[in-house]
Amino acid sequence: MQTPWDHRYAQRTQRMGSSAIRELLKLTEKPDLISFAGGLPAPDVFPLEEFKAACIKVLDQFGPQSLQYSATEGYLPLREQICRHTNRYGISINTENVMITSGSQQALDLLGKIFINPGDRILVESPTYLGALQAWNAYGAEYVSVPSDKDGMVTDALEEALRYGPKFVYVLPNFQNPTGVTLSLERRHQLVELADRYGVPIVEDDPYGQLRFEGDHLPSIVVLDGQYRGNHDHCYRGNVIYLSTFSKTLSPGIRLAWVVAPPEVIRKLVQAKQGADLHTATFNQIVAHEVSRGGFLDQHIKLIRRVYKERRDAMLAAMDRYFPPEVDWTQPQGGLFLWGSLPENLDSKDVLKQAIERNVAFVPGEPFYPNGGGHNTMRINFSNASTEMISEGIARLGEVLYEKIKNT
Amino acid sequence: MQTPWDHRYAQRTQRMGSSAIRELLKLTEKPDLISFAGGLPAPDVFPLEEFKAACIKVLDQFGPQSLQYSATEGYLPLREQICRHTNRYGISINTENVMITSGSQQALDLLGKIFINPGDRILVESPTYLGALQAWNAYGAEYVSVPSDKDGMVTDALEEALRYGPKFVYVLPNFQNPTGVTLSLERRHQLVELADRYGVPIVEDDPYGQLRFEGDHLPSIVVLDGQYRGNHDHCYRGNVIYLSTFSKTLSPGIRLAWVVAPPEVIRKLVQAKQGADLHTATFNQIVAHEVSRGGFLDQHIKLIRRVYKERRDAMLAAMDRYFPPEVDWTQPQGGLFLWGSLPENLDSKDVLKQAIERNVAFVPGEPFYPNGGGHNTMRINFSNASTEMISEGIARLGEVLYEKIKNT
Repeated sequence: MQTPWDHRYAQRTQRMGSSAIRELLKLTEKPDLISFAGGLPAPDVFPLEEFKAACIKVLDQFGPQSLQYSATEGYLPLREQICRHTNRYGISINTENVMITSGSQQALDLLGKIFINPGDRILVESPTYLGALQAWNAYGAEYVSVPSDKDGMVTDALEEALRYGPKFVYVLPNFQNPTGVTLSLERRHQLVELADRYGVPIVEDDPYGQLRFEGDHLPSIVVLDGQYRGNHDHCYRGNVIYLSTFSKTLSPGIRLAWVVAPPEVIRKLVQAKQGADLHTATFNQIVAHEVSRGGFLDQHIKLIRRVYKERRDAMLAAMDRYFPPEVDWTQPQGGLFLWGSLPENLDSKDVLKQAIERNVAFVPGEPFYPNGGGHNTMRINFSNASTEMISEGIARLGEVLYEKIKNT
Repeated sequence: MQTPWDHRYAQRTQRMGSSAIRELLKLTEKPDLISFAGGLPAPDVFPLEEFKAACIKVLDQFGPQSLQYSATEGYLPLREQICRHTNRYGISINTENVMITSGSQQALDLLGKIFINPGDRILVESPTYLGALQAWNAYGAEYVSVPSDKDGMVTDALEEALRYGPKFVYVLPNFQNPTGVTLSLERRHQLVELADRYGVPIVEDDPYGQLRFEGDHLPSIVVLDGQYRGNHDHCYRGNVIYLSTFSKTLSPGIRLAWVVAPPEVIRKLVQAKQGADLHTATFNQIVAHEVSRGGFLDQHIKLIRRVYKERRDAMLAAMDRYFPPEVDWTQPQGGLFLWGSLPENLDSKDVLKQAIERNVAFVPGEPFYPNGGGHNTMRINFSNASTEMISEGIARLGEVLYEKIKNT
């Protein structure tokens, strides 16, 4: 049925269309289905009691201020807390370097708004985070893609890509979404140096960096960049915009994340955010500050790491046991996802259709490739289901894969 | 100090610049200043105890679900509640017609994203809501403006403006921001009929409609449009997109608002919102649903109306007493604002500078005019300060105005 709005959509909506895969994933919303498709944190470790205590305390002590409008850049004590947290990792920033956002997705959207002209190229890993592509497609972005392997973005291929004159490089160095791989230290240095040489800045998206459950912590790109150029006045003015979030450590449902950037970029982001949602919910910011202060967050992250490690181990063990030898997968040292590769002649969308019939789901890898490819890949989440469900779900998926390989 | 980001901003940021008035308003952040500049609801009526009870109940009863990711379109019971609320006013909608947003500002931004191509004209009242201009400037909107008087948008001037082929008409029919005036019933009918005749749809922004403290409720544009075309299948598919919010009835600090639109528009908005912030905070939606259910919101709104009426009365009485006879102002029947007009030879920006020295502030009217004008106008908020502060502040402002008129 026609409405007067039908022929009035902006051109940019043509690149925001509903995908075939989104339609497929709607089928996963049935009961009894074991879903490895979402990117949901483990609900069993959400700190419910701490949230309750903080809500009561904030409403009692802050009163009306906690329910009132507040500053676009975010709640000052929370920004100070983020500065202290960041400074522990070897880079000195101040509150002028920090803006709070309504989840990292909003940071990606606002970066698109202030930097991307239609036709601008963004240099991305391939595959890369789907949400970034969704956000930036709306601003008319094109993509130059660099392949990745088990050590992350292949920096040997970076130089050629940088010659295309991209607006910026977008990289998820830790336990990448979707592949689960981590950019090696050597490549991090290479990335910082090459980006500086070509004068191309970097957006570093780091939602999972705290969730390392084995191996050594590697310094962030923003830290390496700060060291590379030396920053002495407790203010970061370098080549990197750094994104992180409370979604994977406290709760995704409170929509709370942050950007670290040079002060001038923060001012532009604040202007853009003012037009986008005025500010992030006041109450959520004060409550998150209360919950995470006094060392609670550090303790809580240790619990999350333990639970996620168990689940990853359960998944890797189940894959070893139930998956056909023709299938490969990554061995993430942290985060929420791993990445499977099927024989070239299989299409993971077909596999998903059959998997749904067996009540198990994952995300086909194709949409994570900005310039096509990846028909035989799959993103598999290990953070959300219990170890028992993981074993059962991977067993079901293994049966589907054996059948598919036999019949093609 | 230069950073690699400096020369990389998108063209659209040129229209998002910091304004002279924003700089002026920064000066109002000093203690002891009585500010009529903001659009802040009265903090003394925020339902703190009800919020506390709801937070506890939601964390106890919903558990992890309340802190987890949730659907982009919003929490279903809240959307159902909004349908019931809307249906009371004579239009039949269902949940396919409703999306939750992170404040009405986000609804304005997303409407810009899905409808506005660079150069598109939007038909607005002049003056109109500054936040809409901020949101749509970023998408390259131009404006066709229609004047308003004490009965709102002058619909006799509408037909000529509609011939410019605007993308849509934007109107705030109730206690408009910034003027405080209300569109008369006759003009509402005219607007619906003319928009239909020219095939131009309408965005109706109604943050204050519930806050009428005198006179009779007037039907919304979306209700009149629904009646005009008849809607029989409990689904609205008409000419109007309707925006409203919990910011002025429950709390602005929880960032919770909604859009009513034809289902196809809602689907496009959901796609755009997915790229913008994934979804509005789960916890806030469930808590707001808990606080407002069972008739509490209706009762609470009665209290707000009583308090705001007292404050408006105090402001009008103080203006009668302290303002020079050369100054005019509107007589709002609801909402948060009234609008002052100074003699033509005065500039309200100059008045503000002197007012700040006397520790009182308002917003100069100029930025509310999309195509210029209004140098002698001022927006004055009456919802935030106590009646005593209102009398004191208006007395101070009166002194400044008397001096300014004498000296020019």
